[in-house]
Amino acid sequence: MSTVPLLSDDAADPRVRAVFDDIRASRGTDYVNRFWRALATDPALLETTWAEVKRVMGQSSALDGLTKELIYIAVSVANGCGYCVHSHTASARARGMSDAQYADLLAVVALAARTNHLATALQVPVDPAFDATRA
Amino acid sequence: MSTVPLLSDDAADPRVRAVFDDIRASRGTDYVNRFWRALATDPALLETTWAEVKRVMGQSSALDGLTKELIYIAVSVANGCGYCVHSHTASARARGMSDAQYADLLAVVALAARTNHLATALQVPVDPAFDATRA
Amino acid sequence: MSTVPLLSDDAADPRVRAVFDDIRASRGTDYVNRFWRALATDPALLETTWAEVKRVMGQSSALDGLTKELIYIAVSVANGCGYCVHSHTASARARGMSDAQYADLLAVVALAARTNHLATALQVPVDPAFDATRA
Amino acid sequence: MSTVPLLSDDAADPRVRAVFDDIRASRGTDYVNRFWRALATDPALLETTWAEVKRVMGQSSALDGLTKELIYIAVSVANGCGYCVHSHTASARARGMSDAQYADLLAVVALAARTNHLATALQVPVDPAFDATRA
Amino acid sequence: MSTVPLLSDDAADPRVRAVFDDIRASRGTDYVNRFWRALATDPALLETTWAEVKRVMGQSSALDGLTKELIYIAVSVANGCGYCVHSHTASARARGMSDAQYADLLAVVALAARTNHLATALQVPVDPAFDATRA
Amino acid sequence: MSTVPLLSDDAADPRVRAVFDDIRASRGTDYVNRFWRALATDPALLETTWAEVKRVMGQSSALDGLTKELIYIAVSVANGCGYCVHSHTASARARGMSDAQYADLLAVVALAARTNHLATALQVPVDPAFDATRA
Repeated sequence: MSTVPLLSDDAADPRVRAVFDDIRASRGTDYVNRFWRALATDPALLETTWAEVKRVMGQSSALDGLTKELIYIAVSVANGCGYCVHSHTASARARGMSDAQYADLLAVVALAARTNHLATALQVPVDPAFDATRA
Repeated sequence: MSTVPLLSDDAADPRVRAVFDDIRASRGTDYVNRFWRALATDPALLETTWAEVKRVMGQSSALDGLTKELIYIAVSVANGCGYCVHSHTASARARGMSDAQYADLLAVVALAARTNHLATALQVPVDPAFDATRA
Repeated sequence: MSTVPLLSDDAADPRVRAVFDDIRASRGTDYVNRFWRALATDPALLETTWAEVKRVMGQSSALDGLTKELIYIAVSVANGCGYCVHSHTASARARGMSDAQYADLLAVVALAARTNHLATALQVPVDPAFDATRA
Repeated sequence: MSTVPLLSDDAADPRVRAVFDDIRASRGTDYVNRFWRALATDPALLETTWAEVKRVMGQSSALDGLTKELIYIAVSVANGCGYCVHSHTASARARGMSDAQYADLLAVVALAARTNHLATALQVPVDPAFDATRA
Repeated sequence: MSTVPLLSDDAADPRVRAVFDDIRASRGTDYVNRFWRALATDPALLETTWAEVKRVMGQSSALDGLTKELIYIAVSVANGCGYCVHSHTASARARGMSDAQYADLLAVVALAARTNHLATALQVPVDPAFDATRA
Repeated sequence: MSTVPLLSDDAADPRVRAVFDDIRASRGTDYVNRFWRALATDPALLETTWAEVKRVMGQSSALDGLTKELIYIAVSVANGCGYCVHSHTASARARGMSDAQYADLLAVVALAARTNHLATALQVPVDPAFDATRA
C-alpha cells in the first residue's frame, strides 16, 4: 500500500492527464507505472519530476542511455529504494542491458560498498594527489 | 587522521610490500594512495581487497573501465564516502571522463536521489509489470 | 513477518501491559500498533522508547506537533524505514496535515536529497561564513 | 578540497553570472556560497538546481519558510551531508530559528533515527490501519 | 519478486551446483536460501561471494561466530537491508543468541543511531585525543 | 567547526556541569569529549542522551562491553558518522580490542556491506524459513 491513492486515468485532472499522455508518447507504451500515479497527488510535483526525468534520461547527451540507467540503479541500490531498483533494472533491460553487463554492474556495486565501508571505518584522509583544483 | 597509522614502505612487511608493488605495477605509477596504507593494518584484508579491485576494475569485461568508474562514484556518493568520491573521480578522469560526461553523471545521481526519496516517501508498491521472473 | 512475535494483550506481562495501556490512554484509542507489539520483546526497551516518544512528541514544546511529525517523516524517508514512513504520515494526517502541506513536504525532501547528493559528489568544503561559533 | 574548481565571478560565463546575480538579488546579500561556485562546473545543472531551490524554498507556500528549513536539515542529517547541515542550519537561524526550536529539532531527529533503526531491526510489517487508500 | 529468477538445483550448471553443494555441506542442512539462488545469475559472483562469506564467517578467528553475526545484523539494519536482517538474525539465533543478548543488540543499535544523527547534526569535530596515530 | 559552540566548564550551568562531572567520574578521566560539549547546547538533550549511554554501554548486561563497542562502531560506519567511528574505535581499544579483533570487525563490516548491496540490488524476497514467528 502507498501513502496516497494511485490515480487512475479517469480520476486525473487535465494537468495530470497531460503528463500521463506524455509519458505514454515518450515511451511508446500505454502503461503508466505506479510511481507517476502516486506522484500525481500533487500535479506540480508530477510535472517538474517528469520534466526532469525526460530531460536527463530521455535526451541524447554525453553518456548513452544505458550507462545512465546503470548509474541510476547504482544510486537506487545504495539508497535502498526497492521500487527504483525494480523500475530502473527493467528500464536498463529495455535499453539492451545484457546478462554480462548486469553481472558487471552487481560486481562494481558490491565492491564499492565494501571499500566505502572500509574507508569510512578507517577514516582515511583524502590524498592531496586527488586534488583536481591544484594548478 | 585515520584510526590506524598509514604504513610506509619501510615499515611494510613482505606480504604488504608485495601488494604495494603490485599496485604500482598495475597502475604504472610510484604512488600508493592512503587507502591501501591504512588497510595494510591487516595484510589479509589488504590482499583480498586489492585482489577484488584488480579483478573487478582492472580486467576487461562487459562494461568498459570508465563506465565502471562512474558506477563506483555513484555508489560512493550515495553511501557518503568522501574519500571514495575523491579517489574514483580522479580515476574516472584518468580514464578519460570528459567534463560533459561528469556533468551527466552529476545530473543522473541528483535525479535518482530525488526519485528514490519520493518513491520511499510515497511507499509505492512495485508494479507487476517489472517482474523479470514472469514467464 | 517480523523477527519476533507481535505480543498480544493476553500474552503481555504487567510491565508491557502498563505501556500498552498508557499508549491507549495517551492517544485516546484502543489500537496499539505493531511497532510496540514487536518492541515488547524486551520490556525495558519498550518502556524507555515509549517514554522518549511521549516526552518528545507528546508534550507541547517550541515546535508544534505537526511540525515535529513532518521532521519525523523526513528522517524516516532518508533512512528508508517504510514502517516509520507509514506510521508517521498517518500521525501527521491525524494532526491535521493538509494535502498542500504534504505536497510541500515531498518537494522539500526531494530537493534536499538532490542537493545532498550533489554537495557530496562535489565534496564542497564548508564556507567559513556558516560558522556559528565565530565571535 | 572539492572535485572541481570553485568558480570566481571573474571566471564565470554569462549564464553562470546570471545565476550568481539572481542568488545575490534573491537573498539580499553579496555572498554566493561555495555550493553554487562548485555546481557552476555545469551551467545547466546550476540553472536547474537554483531554479528548484528558489521555487521550493523561496516562495510562500503551505508550509512556512522556517519549517521547510527544518525539514531540509533533517534530511541532510540522515543523508550525512555535512555541507548541507551547515548551510541549512545557518539558513534556519537566518529565518529566526530559536535555540529552543533547534533543541526540539535535534530531539525529534534523534528519536526518529532510534525508532527507524528499531523498526528495521525488528522488520515490523505495516499495520493495515495506516492504509490511507482504504475506503 | 526479485530482479532475476531464483535458480533451482535442476537448472543450475555445474559451477553453481558445486557452490550450492558446498553451502549445504558447510551448514549441515539441505536448505539453500534465496540469496544464493538469486546470486547464481552470475556464477563468478556467486563463487567469490560465497568464498568470502565462508572465509570471514565460517572460520574460527579473533572474534567468535556469534559476535560476528551481531556485527553483521548491525550493519544490515543501518543499511536498511530487510533480507539480510532476517537471514542474519536467524543465523545469530542458530549460533545461540539469547533473548537477552538480542535485546542488548537492539539497545546498542538504537543508541548508536541516535548519537550518530546527533553528532552529524552538530557537526562535532573529532577530538585530537582520539588520534590513534599520535606518538 | 560545529553548528553550536563547544561549552567549556566555566560556561556550563549547574545541570550541564553535573553531567560533565558524572562523565568524568564514570570514566575515571578528566577529559570530556567534544560531543558532550556540543550537546550541552540543550541541557535536557545532554541529560537524556548521557543517561542512555551510561545505561546501555556502562552497565554489565548480556553482552560484554567490548562486543557492544564493536556493534556501535559497525552502526556508525554504516551511518557514515566519522566522529562516532573515531570515538568508539578509541573506546573499543580502551576496552581491550586487539589488532586481530579490529581486523575481524573490518572484515565483517566490509562483507555485510557487500551482501547488503547485492541483496538490495537483486531484491531477494525473504525466505519463509527465516520466520521466527512460525509455530
